[in-house]
Formats: sequence, C-alpha cells, structure tokens
Amino acid sequence: MSELENFVFQSPTKIIFGKNTETQVGAEVSAYGKKVLFHYGGGSIKKTGLYNRIIESLKAAGVEYIELGGAQPNPRLSLVNEGIELCRREKVDLILAVGGGSAIDSAKAIALGVPYNGDVWDFFTGKAEAEKALPVGVVLTLPAAGSEASNSCVITNEDGWLKRGCSSQFNRPAFAIMNPELTYTLPPYQTACGAADIMAHVMERYFTNTTDVDFTDMLSEATLKTIIKHVPIALKEPENYESRAQIMWAGTIAHNDLLSTGRLGDWASHQIEHELSGIYDVAHGAGLAVVFPAWMKYVYHHDVQRFVRFAVKVWNAEQDFFDPKQTALKGIWHLENFFRSIDLPVRLGELGIPDDRIREMADKTKAGEDGKVGNFVKLTHNDVYKILQLAK
Amino acid sequence: MSELENFVFQSPTKIIFGKNTETQVGAEVSAYGKKVLFHYGGGSIKKTGLYNRIIESLKAAGVEYIELGGAQPNPRLSLVNEGIELCRREKVDLILAVGGGSAIDSAKAIALGVPYNGDVWDFFTGKAEAEKALPVGVVLTLPAAGSEASNSCVITNEDGWLKRGCSSQFNRPAFAIMNPELTYTLPPYQTACGAADIMAHVMERYFTNTTDVDFTDMLSEATLKTIIKHVPIALKEPENYESRAQIMWAGTIAHNDLLSTGRLGDWASHQIEHELSGIYDVAHGAGLAVVFPAWMKYVYHHDVQRFVRFAVKVWNAEQDFFDPKQTALKGIWHLENFFRSIDLPVRLGELGIPDDRIREMADKTKAGEDGKVGNFVKLTHNDVYKILQLAK
Repeated sequence: MSELENFVFQSPTKIIFGKNTETQVGAEVSAYGKKVLFHYGGGSIKKTGLYNRIIESLKAAGVEYIELGGAQPNPRLSLVNEGIELCRREKVDLILAVGGGSAIDSAKAIALGVPYNGDVWDFFTGKAEAEKALPVGVVLTLPAAGSEASNSCVITNEDGWLKRGCSSQFNRPAFAIMNPELTYTLPPYQTACGAADIMAHVMERYFTNTTDVDFTDMLSEATLKTIIKHVPIALKEPENYESRAQIMWAGTIAHNDLLSTGRLGDWASHQIEHELSGIYDVAHGAGLAVVFPAWMKYVYHHDVQRFVRFAVKVWNAEQDFFDPKQTALKGIWHLENFFRSIDLPVRLGELGIPDDRIREMADKTKAGEDGKVGNFVKLTHNDVYKILQLAK
Repeated sequence: MSELENFVFQSPTKIIFGKNTETQVGAEVSAYGKKVLFHYGGGSIKKTGLYNRIIESLKAAGVEYIELGGAQPNPRLSLVNEGIELCRREKVDLILAVGGGSAIDSAKAIALGVPYNGDVWDFFTGKAEAEKALPVGVVLTLPAAGSEASNSCVITNEDGWLKRGCSSQFNRPAFAIMNPELTYTLPPYQTACGAADIMAHVMERYFTNTTDVDFTDMLSEATLKTIIKHVPIALKEPENYESRAQIMWAGTIAHNDLLSTGRLGDWASHQIEHELSGIYDVAHGAGLAVVFPAWMKYVYHHDVQRFVRFAVKVWNAEQDFFDPKQTALKGIWHLENFFRSIDLPVRLGELGIPDDRIREMADKTKAGEDGKVGNFVKLTHNDVYKILQLAK
C-alpha cells in the first residue's frame, strides 16, 4: 500500500462533441496542413454515408486527401507499415482516423512511424521511445477503446501474433469529433463489447494499492455507473441520443488518464486478454468480459475492502457489515451478471477457446520487468493459468 | 428544458501534481523561453520559503526573471496595466503566477494585454475578443478559483469598482504545478472560502435546464462529495496530505469545464457575488457562501426534481418520496449548514454588508444580453433584490 502518488496529467485533445459535428472535420484538418491520409476500416462508413460526408467536408475545406482503408480489429502491423510508406511518399501532414479503436490505433502507429528512422515495431517492444509523431485527427464511430484521447496504441504483429501496446504523449490525438448519432447503427454485440472495454479501462485503474485517492475513486464510480445505466437503454433503443451520448463521452474519460491520477493501475486483465484476442481474434471487449470477473475471483482476498467499496458504490449492493467477503463477492457477481445481461460471453468456452490452449496463453502473457503480470497483485504465469482456469 | 448540447472541450494545461513539484518550475518555464515575469501576491510566499525555492529553480534552469508582486484578492486593473508595461519593456516570454486565483488571474490579464494593441479592459467589457496571449505558468498555493486550468479570468477595475470576467481558450495556463503541501499553512478561513468557491463552480454548472447530462451530473456529484468529505478533515488536520490533495485536484476539475460538458450553466450567484466583493472587498468564497443558498431558496420551485437529486446524491439526504419539496429544501439546508460548520458567513450581515446597500448591489449586478441574470431561472434585477433580501 502506498499513498497518493505524484502525477503528471495532460490530455490536450480537442473534443468536438454532438450532432452533425462530422461536418466540421475539413475545417479542423485544415488547421494542421493541406494533405491528409484518410484512414478507416471496412465498408461500414460507406454504407452509412459517413464516408461521403467526410470527403465533402475535406473538399469544402480545400484539403487534399489520400485513402487507406482496411484497418481491422486488432490492427495489423503490415497495414501500419503500408500506411507509413504511403505517408512518406505522399508527404502527408496529418492522419485522419475514421472509425473505432482499430482505425485510430492503426493511425497512431502510422503517425509514430512516419518520422522515425527505424522499424515502428521498436516502439511496441520498448526498444525505442517516441520523440515525435504526425498529428492524428479522429472521427469516432465506436465508443470502446477510448483511443480518441488516450496516450495508448495497441498493434498486432502478424509475425507471431503478438499484440503489444505503446504509451506516449505523442499518441494523443489533436482532435476528436464525436457524434453519438454515428453509433446508432452499431450491432448490439459491438455496443456491448464497447461497454466491457470502457468498464475495463476504469476497473484496471480502480483496483490499485494506492490509498488516499478518494476523488479519483469517485470519478471512476461515476463513469462505471454511467455505463451500467445507459448501455442497457442503448441496446433496447439504439437511437436513444441521450444514452448513446453518455456512453460515448464516458468512454473517452475512462481512458484519457483522468482516472489514473495519483495511482498505479493494475492492467493484468488487459495483458491476459491480449493473448486471447491476439491468438483467437476475438473482440477485445468480449475477451475482457471473460477475463475480468475471473481475475477478480482470484485476487479479491488481497484487498477485500476495495471490493466491498466496488460492490456498494458501483453496484448499490446491500452491504453485509459483518461479512465483507460476501459483500465483495456480490460486486463480482453483479459485474458478471451485467455482462451476461448484455449478451456478452463470460467463459472461455463461449468465446470458442478450448481448454487445452490455456497453458499456452498463460505462458505467453506479457509480464513486466519483474517477470510478473499486473500490479494490484503481482501474478506469476502460474497465477494467470489459474485465473484462466476460473474462466473456463 | 433542452437535451444535451453540442460542446467543444479542450483543457490542455499540463498538471504537475504532488510533493516537491515546485522544484520543477525552472525546467517547465525554460520550455517557453528565457525570460519570465515572476508574479505573485503578498509576502506569504516569502515567509514560507516558497519564494526562494522558485528563484533557485529558475536560476538552476538558466531562466532570467523579473518580479512583480502585489496581486491582491479581487486583482486590480492598475497592477495588470503595470505588468503589461513591464513585460513589453523587458521582452518577457512567459508569465509565472505563484499563488491563488488572484495572482493567476492578474497574470492571465497581463498575458492577454501584452500582445494587444489597445486597452486590456476591452476583453472584460466584451469590446474585443482575445486572439493571442503570452503563455502563463502557475505554481498553485490556494485551491479555490480553479484558475490554474480554467479559461476564465476576473479583474476588478478600480474606476467604478467593476469586477468583470473574460473567458477565452487563451486564458488556459500552459502548465500548473500543484503541491498540496503548499496549502498546509493556509489559514482555516481561506481553506473554507476556497471550499465554497470550488463548490460554487460545480453548482453553477449543475443547476441547468439541460436534461440528459447524467454523466456530467455524476462527475459533478463526485466532485462536490470530495470537497464535503475532505474540507472538514483538512480544517482539523491542516497537514493531512490526503485531504489537501483531494481538495486541490477537485478544485481544478471543478472549473476546467469538464463539468460544463453538454449543458448551459447558471452563473447568477457569481454575478450577484461579484457586486458584493467588488464593492466590499470580501473574499469571493465567503460572498458565494452567502449568495448561493439564498439563490437556491428563491429558484428551487423552478425544477424541484433537480434539487431533490442534489439533496439525495450530494448530501445523502433521506428522500421523502411523497414530498419532493421537503427533500429539495433538505439539500439547501445541508449546504447552508455545511458552510456554517466550516465557519463561513451565510448572511450579508455576517459579511458586514448593511441592508441599505441591497438595492444598489441588485441594480448593479451584470445582466446578460437579454437584460436578465443567470440561465437556470432568468432573473430580473428585482429578483436579484429579493434574493439578497433572503440573504439578510
């Protein structure tokens, strides 16, 4: 246990939030240059008409653009390298990512790579630290990864299917345009996976050994409660602007590091999940819905009172003052139950991951410099194995 | 009533928070230039040794400095003009404010004035809009005004004792160094006035006609509860690092506009209070402690349910489901009682303001373009008079 830690917090991304805000993209881009790489994923933005609205806005602002589509979930290093080549050849000033975390992270990695004399993967292995990057702009279509204002970027290297992250202030986008209406057409499963991802970003920060972070705790609880309240509404009424808006904005705050201030987060569940989605290409949020409750069941003994707080403050669980363990378990039960209620998997089998790969995934989980996974409890690879056993 | 509004939010100030962080000031300043105006208030920073630590850090970083002390509560236009002249003459690159809201706002006004070809007061009368400013750095010693990361700046013009604000993105400081230990020596009254100021910043945003701002509401409630919990502790134990830290960080978030996102705030209480402290030079927080409960008593009928939420979510008041007005009034009672409990005045008489000046203050209160004061309820000057009567 340690008291509130010194911190530096700077989240300078300009958030442009609300209806029709995507029509401002040309004007925002033009503040950074005359030529942009328009980077996106599959065909959904063409189907919804967003693609055309973006092009129109860019043209109206006199911005020249080149296109690179194909960013996919668990964005791939090969496409990043293609993007880097393209940007260098075409002398691009800014990268505009239109989509969710995949397109944004892919764009961030391209932005890091363009001015770097070396292999961009170096930033993900820790071999190099970013010293500059092209600016990245975002039009967000999926609230989940929080990448629109975060300092993080996660890329999958097809050579070994390694999924690795890179954190840097240079990864924070210059601007993020967020129109909740763009999320009306999300399939329910993606909305639910996004919810699990957002909640995981908060919970990774919430389960900490740093004491005396009351304000950060309360902000975190507010963020979790917003998701818990509004995701079921959005699933029932996909065009409920209010709920779509609350989810979208909460998703940004969940991961822009406001909720890290003063404390060291855990991040074991993310590391464990990276192996699931790296190997099996499952949705990140679905993987987290499986891993997080199992992680909790394995570690809650370490600080029962923190789990009691989680149960009472986040889930309004009735507190048993004479049996804190029972109250702590109620919080975990509520979380798992919530994931089930929004049709997320909560067991490896439901993800289609067979039991006989558990040892491999456990062993492959990336550890810190001390050889351990996570911070709340320092897990060995055998602990990770046991957690994955609890997720069977 | 209107639903969630489109918004732009950008709070780029680099927050450097924690113990001994003031020793980093030289390094931070040197990122912006070689010559700084070191701007502060009275002698307290000399008494505590902070003054010397700042000078040492600036010298160690090779930064040249000139000094301007004397910024006082309700900072004066004459000192601002003196600072502008000084900065122009000495070709200063950055202004470093060391102190609370007074020194910071004074620094911001100087920063606006230096590159402006005209009277800096133009920005406060609405005659001109800022297009640039010198960068401002902050070492915060008093959590209250939230000016360390806000876009606002309030200056008093001695010619007529007019206290007026100017909001601009150019007012956001480049960095803010926040060491909670620097607040250990604050007199209890200043700690309490700071609390009232911080709470008022949240409440001005919370009482809104914009519906569907659940997330912003919950973040606001978290901020208020942090102050309500930790200020009494800090008053009892002035060197309680945890509580001093929670108060300091909450004070920043209370006013950096995160809690404005998606909605239109009220701000009538601030406008009314400006006349009190403009004329009588009372502490801003003390004035707010008098005005805010009176304002609430006058307007709560307008949206009883919002006041019920305030009572239940912020004060944990027992809800009377069959008598919402009683529950609403409980919230106002709790607020007034809290102010009393931390030895703040809650009546004009306790501020030393006689009844016979009420009409004058009411008439002088600055109205919006529609001739009305505030937004939650659009107040006439006669309404303001009645509110001040309730504050007798």
